[in-house]
Amino acid sequence: MAMIIESVPNISEGKNKDIIEACVDQIRTTAGCTLLQYTSDPSHNRTVITYMGSAEACEEASVKLAKKAVELIDLTKHVGEHPRMGCVDVMPFIPIKEATTEDCVELSKRVGERIAKEADLPVFLYEQSASAAHRENLASIRKGQFEGMAEKVKAEQWIPDFGGQRIHPTGGVVAVGARPPLIAFNINLSTSDLTVANNIAKIIRRSSGGFDCVKAMGVMLEERNIAQVSINMTDFTKTPLYRVVELVKAEAARYGVHVVGTEIVGLCPMNALFDTAEYYLQIEDFNPAVQVIENHLL
Amino acid sequence: MAMIIESVPNISEGKNKDIIEACVDQIRTTAGCTLLQYTSDPSHNRTVITYMGSAEACEEASVKLAKKAVELIDLTKHVGEHPRMGCVDVMPFIPIKEATTEDCVELSKRVGERIAKEADLPVFLYEQSASAAHRENLASIRKGQFEGMAEKVKAEQWIPDFGGQRIHPTGGVVAVGARPPLIAFNINLSTSDLTVANNIAKIIRRSSGGFDCVKAMGVMLEERNIAQVSINMTDFTKTPLYRVVELVKAEAARYGVHVVGTEIVGLCPMNALFDTAEYYLQIEDFNPAVQVIENHLL
Repeated sequence: MAMIIESVPNISEGKNKDIIEACVDQIRTTAGCTLLQYTSDPSHNRTVITYMGSAEACEEASVKLAKKAVELIDLTKHVGEHPRMGCVDVMPFIPIKEATTEDCVELSKRVGERIAKEADLPVFLYEQSASAAHRENLASIRKGQFEGMAEKVKAEQWIPDFGGQRIHPTGGVVAVGARPPLIAFNINLSTSDLTVANNIAKIIRRSSGGFDCVKAMGVMLEERNIAQVSINMTDFTKTPLYRVVELVKAEAARYGVHVVGTEIVGLCPMNALFDTAEYYLQIEDFNPAVQVIENHLL
Repeated sequence: MAMIIESVPNISEGKNKDIIEACVDQIRTTAGCTLLQYTSDPSHNRTVITYMGSAEACEEASVKLAKKAVELIDLTKHVGEHPRMGCVDVMPFIPIKEATTEDCVELSKRVGERIAKEADLPVFLYEQSASAAHRENLASIRKGQFEGMAEKVKAEQWIPDFGGQRIHPTGGVVAVGARPPLIAFNINLSTSDLTVANNIAKIIRRSSGGFDCVKAMGVMLEERNIAQVSINMTDFTKTPLYRVVELVKAEAARYGVHVVGTEIVGLCPMNALFDTAEYYLQIEDFNPAVQVIENHLL
């Protein structure tokens, strides 16, 4: 049984196919890595790459990707809706199989050190790898974006963990760290009133008193003319999917609104679905690691 | 990606540890097989063995097990509550990964032919491998049990598929065949009235007008003083778990009874739980083969 780690690097290029493919090729050409998907958003001008592999393979692919991104992506010319601070903006490592958070923290530190040296890109350790509490949250690190970063790193509390008190002139800086699997989960409502989705989002998210591991906001699905609660589940082992859905149903009822459907965007770990089945079927003493046949093949 | 098939042979010995271990050893010592579990019921005087492996490994293990069972288990001396007709009574093959029903049917025929020759045990092909509709159901084949089998096989419609028109004098006959994964699933009710469980069992099972792929009966859980609907889900891809639970809730409501919990006994395929999560979360356009991360490791 070999350790498997997932990584989801975001690069600051979402339009130029040649550059995107050249970056994705760094994963494709690394032995021991499996490319799962990559999706480019031209308006964000950003590409999200998802792959998995052994710790060694992820380390190799990460360093190669950082080098290629520094070579091809110039942040001084980058325009896009999504906030960004580096040519490769963020590089999370997620334990999938036979791997612990500690394994991913160690990997992120090895990768951070090598990227600073080999790609000349200063590195912030973030999330579970952060060197201080104020540096855990990606949004806090990224605040000011590329344009403000040269000034920001002059402050003691924002010195990069690797690569010195500076930014790369065209590549910026990158955040590298361990985190739990994130599930992008949307809940569609039987209303075209965005206020309802916004109110519910406020109730379920941590930042305004809701669940610990939920980020949420209301958005309109224009093509279906319905409002949606758009959610990032940052740790389903603490805040499970079913609990969020049930609370959304309960709060929507206040408006005579119900859930018309949900969406899992991209990938999700099997255990998030086993949790859900266990809850709704009321299964007593269920042990997926032993009782789910396919777990014996992993 | 290699083909993986599961097999769940039942042997007619549930008390004598030496005999049970000698039989289970035939799986343990076959390269390419993984023993998942084995459970012995002394009152049934029967042991259920679950393992998986490549088609070749399953074939080898099946023949070795049949030889050992013929050598060690004497049906002329067997007493137990569970109906039985052979020293190894039944040998199902279930597709798990990269395997089709057809692969399992072919395997069952190769195994049947070899068991008849090498273990001198006549074989009935059953379920999806059956040579005629009246020979699909295991209970129909087994009717009359070991004691009646020598007489039964004299009838044209009950001539074994392999091994001649006879039984083995101490080993009897064995049923070998392909079938879908079976889920042993129990639903516990908030009542000590067995009649309620029996009435609900009757409603949900095929034999009295219910779901196509459900077998069910009411039983008392004496230690908890509650009634249970005890279910065999014979094909969850046609009749899913959640549908049975929802119908049981609806029918129990007639008596003011509700579901206090359920049990999955032993193993179950991950897709049975994905189906359930998809239903209750109302996930739109969900594709577990692509979206569940661990599916990329299988």
